[in-house]
Amino acid sequence: MNRKWVVASRPEVEVQAHNFELKQELVPVVPPGAVLVKTRYLVVSPPARMALVSGGIAGRPIPIGATMRGSGLGEVVESRHADFAAGDLVAGELGWQQYAVSDGARRRPVRKVQGRSGLADSTLLHVMGSGGATAYFGMTVYCRPRPGDTLVVSAAAGNVGMLVCQLGRLQGCRVVGIAGSRGKCDWLVNELGCAAAIDYKAEDVGERLNQTCPDGIDIYFDNVGGATLDAALARIAQGARVVLCGGTSQYNNDLDWYGPKNYFNLVYKQAEMAGFYVFNFADRFEEAHSRLAALLENGSLIYKEDVLEGIEQAPEALMRIFRGDNFGVQLVKVAD
Amino acid sequence: MNRKWVVASRPEVEVQAHNFELKQELVPVVPPGAVLVKTRYLVVSPPARMALVSGGIAGRPIPIGATMRGSGLGEVVESRHADFAAGDLVAGELGWQQYAVSDGARRRPVRKVQGRSGLADSTLLHVMGSGGATAYFGMTVYCRPRPGDTLVVSAAAGNVGMLVCQLGRLQGCRVVGIAGSRGKCDWLVNELGCAAAIDYKAEDVGERLNQTCPDGIDIYFDNVGGATLDAALARIAQGARVVLCGGTSQYNNDLDWYGPKNYFNLVYKQAEMAGFYVFNFADRFEEAHSRLAALLENGSLIYKEDVLEGIEQAPEALMRIFRGDNFGVQLVKVAD
Repeated sequence: MNRKWVVASRPEVEVQAHNFELKQELVPVVPPGAVLVKTRYLVVSPPARMALVSGGIAGRPIPIGATMRGSGLGEVVESRHADFAAGDLVAGELGWQQYAVSDGARRRPVRKVQGRSGLADSTLLHVMGSGGATAYFGMTVYCRPRPGDTLVVSAAAGNVGMLVCQLGRLQGCRVVGIAGSRGKCDWLVNELGCAAAIDYKAEDVGERLNQTCPDGIDIYFDNVGGATLDAALARIAQGARVVLCGGTSQYNNDLDWYGPKNYFNLVYKQAEMAGFYVFNFADRFEEAHSRLAALLENGSLIYKEDVLEGIEQAPEALMRIFRGDNFGVQLVKVAD
Repeated sequence: MNRKWVVASRPEVEVQAHNFELKQELVPVVPPGAVLVKTRYLVVSPPARMALVSGGIAGRPIPIGATMRGSGLGEVVESRHADFAAGDLVAGELGWQQYAVSDGARRRPVRKVQGRSGLADSTLLHVMGSGGATAYFGMTVYCRPRPGDTLVVSAAAGNVGMLVCQLGRLQGCRVVGIAGSRGKCDWLVNELGCAAAIDYKAEDVGERLNQTCPDGIDIYFDNVGGATLDAALARIAQGARVVLCGGTSQYNNDLDWYGPKNYFNLVYKQAEMAGFYVFNFADRFEEAHSRLAALLENGSLIYKEDVLEGIEQAPEALMRIFRGDNFGVQLVKVAD
């Protein structure tokens, strides 16, 4: 049997459990030219909510009754496709389900991936996946760090943020992380080498940025938008780079995003704010991943996973991201 | 006698006549190391309001009772400074007055300027001044136009906008100008070579952008901020460049700027938004001005001045800018 989550209704504000329905069906028969993939891990991230409502960058929301979208790592258990064989490890758009049928291309696109010796396969969904590429290209192409720069990172204990903090430190930046608990902040300082960390749930972000960034912010890597982005814009230094990666604080505001009132500081500080979509760098992912793998292997880079067990936990995994309860990459382990 | 405008009170919202007071004093005696400049023209632009309230980029507002700040062109009528002689043409921070005392450096800084044969001296306050440099560096450094790009310019009939429209057209862009009257829009299309123009006071800017930019906006040169910036951000094309030059629509909102809600489209479109302050390019002004002069001389570039006569008109000049009543560079002719 295949258990899968389908979209039951669209969230009005927060994503809630009743927006999804767990269904059970026979494991699908594999048509010619396709493969059957058994899901091992799903990675859950905030843009999933957009897929439910506006469709986000895809422009169309998931239809009601369709399987919830989601990236995963799995193993080919049956192949009727010339490019795949049983036992192949694949990653891609598996959806929130135990078994996915893919034609390798348009329908639930997956690609063959290879675990690196010494690295857990789950890293293929974060450091060695799109999260790692996001951190790498965000830093190298947009942030352009110089030694001594003050780098501020929001959602610093998340999938992308934790890597950005470390890449910044490795390039000589003074890093200030923003996260949502004392535990995360301690981890940022003690384990990731941040110079300081700000608990946005307990502290005044603007005041703490004043204290921790006395010379202003040279680079702001934004994963959250909203008031945090505005507070950072108010404190940018001359020639600052603001990199827009995510807007988690606003994903629940479908019609009324918070616009940053302090954007005009970009003029006063001759600064730039750039957005990017990591899959536009897809042909350079190997560059990112080989460098990140080397850093993982020599111990210069660490990561943290937050794993829930069982396909039935997928909606909870998404909800806890919006509550800020996850600590590290939010994964759902679906099978061994 | 020297007639001058001093700051009488700070505007609460719009700049009003009673915020200024016209005073008369003896023409000041020139101390050693200084020059006396007779003002010929003043140029008036929207950031003057910031100088009254927050201080803008200078960070400190003009004190109550002090002479209103303003750029002008004048002639040295008496010199006790080794670098200047009577008859020299100078431009700089003369203030809203008929006679200014300058030490050439810190106190009412002025620099010697030279009119070019065939060009009116007044161009030294716009095309051959900071407005021209703003258009030139904004276009060459930030907009990076490619032939066929769709370029949208707000305040397109103003000091900077009119030059940006023409530089864009000369570089092969399809230019859409936004301005505040039918007459200005006709001028943009018929005289400046814009492909289309939008009257923001009479038309729905978003709808008209949809009609005039069917493939999206490759470059948006923003002089106004607010809802117009937001409408443009909603329609940027992949890889767009948004250049922030001014925010006239928001200069009256001291505490509550309109933040652009559609900024996250920078992510979806892998686009950038950059601000710049033209005086950071001061050491390259000669490059800008020699190129613009060549274009003026061979007839590739035109400009429009809107001249009020007499120092007593200075506050009115500023107020009409905020009403959008000026058509072209707003000048005040103070003396022949």
